[in-house]
Amino acid sequence: MTDPTRPDQTPALSPDETREIVATAAALADAARAETLPRFRAAGLGVDNKATAGFDPVTEADRAAEAAMRRALSERRPGDGIIGEEMAGVAGRSGLVWVLDPIDGTRAFVIGAPTWGTLIALCDGQPEAGGRPLYGLIDQPHTGERWAGGLGQASLAAPGGESRLGTRPVEALAEARLCTTFPEVGSAAEQTAFARVAAEVRLTRYGLDCYAYGLLASGHVDLVIEAGLAPYDICAPIAVIEAAGGIVTDWQGGPAQGGGKVLAAANAGLHAAALRLLSEE
Amino acid sequence: MTDPTRPDQTPALSPDETREIVATAAALADAARAETLPRFRAAGLGVDNKATAGFDPVTEADRAAEAAMRRALSERRPGDGIIGEEMAGVAGRSGLVWVLDPIDGTRAFVIGAPTWGTLIALCDGQPEAGGRPLYGLIDQPHTGERWAGGLGQASLAAPGGESRLGTRPVEALAEARLCTTFPEVGSAAEQTAFARVAAEVRLTRYGLDCYAYGLLASGHVDLVIEAGLAPYDICAPIAVIEAAGGIVTDWQGGPAQGGGKVLAAANAGLHAAALRLLSEE
Repeated sequence: MTDPTRPDQTPALSPDETREIVATAAALADAARAETLPRFRAAGLGVDNKATAGFDPVTEADRAAEAAMRRALSERRPGDGIIGEEMAGVAGRSGLVWVLDPIDGTRAFVIGAPTWGTLIALCDGQPEAGGRPLYGLIDQPHTGERWAGGLGQASLAAPGGESRLGTRPVEALAEARLCTTFPEVGSAAEQTAFARVAAEVRLTRYGLDCYAYGLLASGHVDLVIEAGLAPYDICAPIAVIEAAGGIVTDWQGGPAQGGGKVLAAANAGLHAAALRLLSEE
Repeated sequence: MTDPTRPDQTPALSPDETREIVATAAALADAARAETLPRFRAAGLGVDNKATAGFDPVTEADRAAEAAMRRALSERRPGDGIIGEEMAGVAGRSGLVWVLDPIDGTRAFVIGAPTWGTLIALCDGQPEAGGRPLYGLIDQPHTGERWAGGLGQASLAAPGGESRLGTRPVEALAEARLCTTFPEVGSAAEQTAFARVAAEVRLTRYGLDCYAYGLLASGHVDLVIEAGLAPYDICAPIAVIEAAGGIVTDWQGGPAQGGGKVLAAANAGLHAAALRLLSEE
């Protein structure tokens, strides 16, 4: 099946380079985890670090995790470009670009909820200029869950073992499970469009951040609708969800890797039904 | 400090009976976990069990977990009363009543999110007749986290080890972190009252179910505001939060163990500030 959001072919990567990319992404996730996990919930236990000592564990974890990933990249793949949430971009010369979000869901991180994650994607160009995600990881260090998709992979590695990803075949909106970070983000018009979809589905849940994309790829959630995203919020989920059989576009059905308003769906039927409601004027 | 929501004294329990109650609660949580965890995410992987075979893993998990807990109680403490979500109450003759919710957060369970939990409380009478929670557990099987409070205990047991519970001392609403299941539950008037508090706090998060109460007891969340609760939704959180130094009342400052509208706060200052906004007409 051809995908209208992926008009071009993936550039030919040798088996060796594919293995190297997959191993590098895992090394980045490990490096980020070593910085985020010790700081997760560190502000608790009755100590308000922020107020008493100017110490902000979230921002520190964000910066330290991105710095650790960039160090690993400069050692392993110095020719690749980098886009990250916290630091300036690196253009690179290989044509491949790593897109990094050290902590997606900082508000979940702040309150101790295990629904934030580290997002790591490799794109075949700058995502805002049309570069497509080839490979992605969604890593949740507290639960020890790591979703991986692209370059032939579609798996969830967890403490209980590894499982294959696959989206649900449910095509009726009335059966669908919808997740979003709304009502916390989005303009009034965007919230109205979202509400049109929410009114038709079986169940809507809020506040799961990137974890919702992992659950969609694992076949538990059927739709994720967001607005106001940056490329580093969505490139990794695109790779994971497409590898699981799902579809990710913007609210007009176009490419989503540039961020903005995003619709992720378990299958073509649900995608078309939700897109109809989102794109109404 | 005397607590206006607890005018009476806790009945004297011998050290042996206290140990037996703590061990029984743990055995109930283990029994429930053996029924819920294998069914969690079992509907995923592209198989829509509900549609194809009339098999509903959530309801099945709910019923099987409550039945398992009741079997354990009938063996270990046949004289105690039981209130559960799924089955008829047992009056008992000891004056002690177990209050059980096998899966709090069934919608989280359905979508694969690790924010549901099994709630187990022991009260010194029927909670709707004023019986107070003496001991409570909030158990999250997927993350392996178990919060325990009451009878001298205030701890979180997790795969990484055990930690002491303790709420945050932050007393200003402007610094507070608020959680709720809103906007999914509550009347329009209840949502308006909630919005008055949400407008004043630093951060509001949705959809965490009972996990939010655990995070409050661990010092990461400062306020939880809910409406439409049953006794089995709140008795265990009351025991855990009070053991951690927090306060749980209804929206008028009265006892909360009967359910309905509930305000849980990390400390007296935050409780008073939120109560003022919730009780405005």
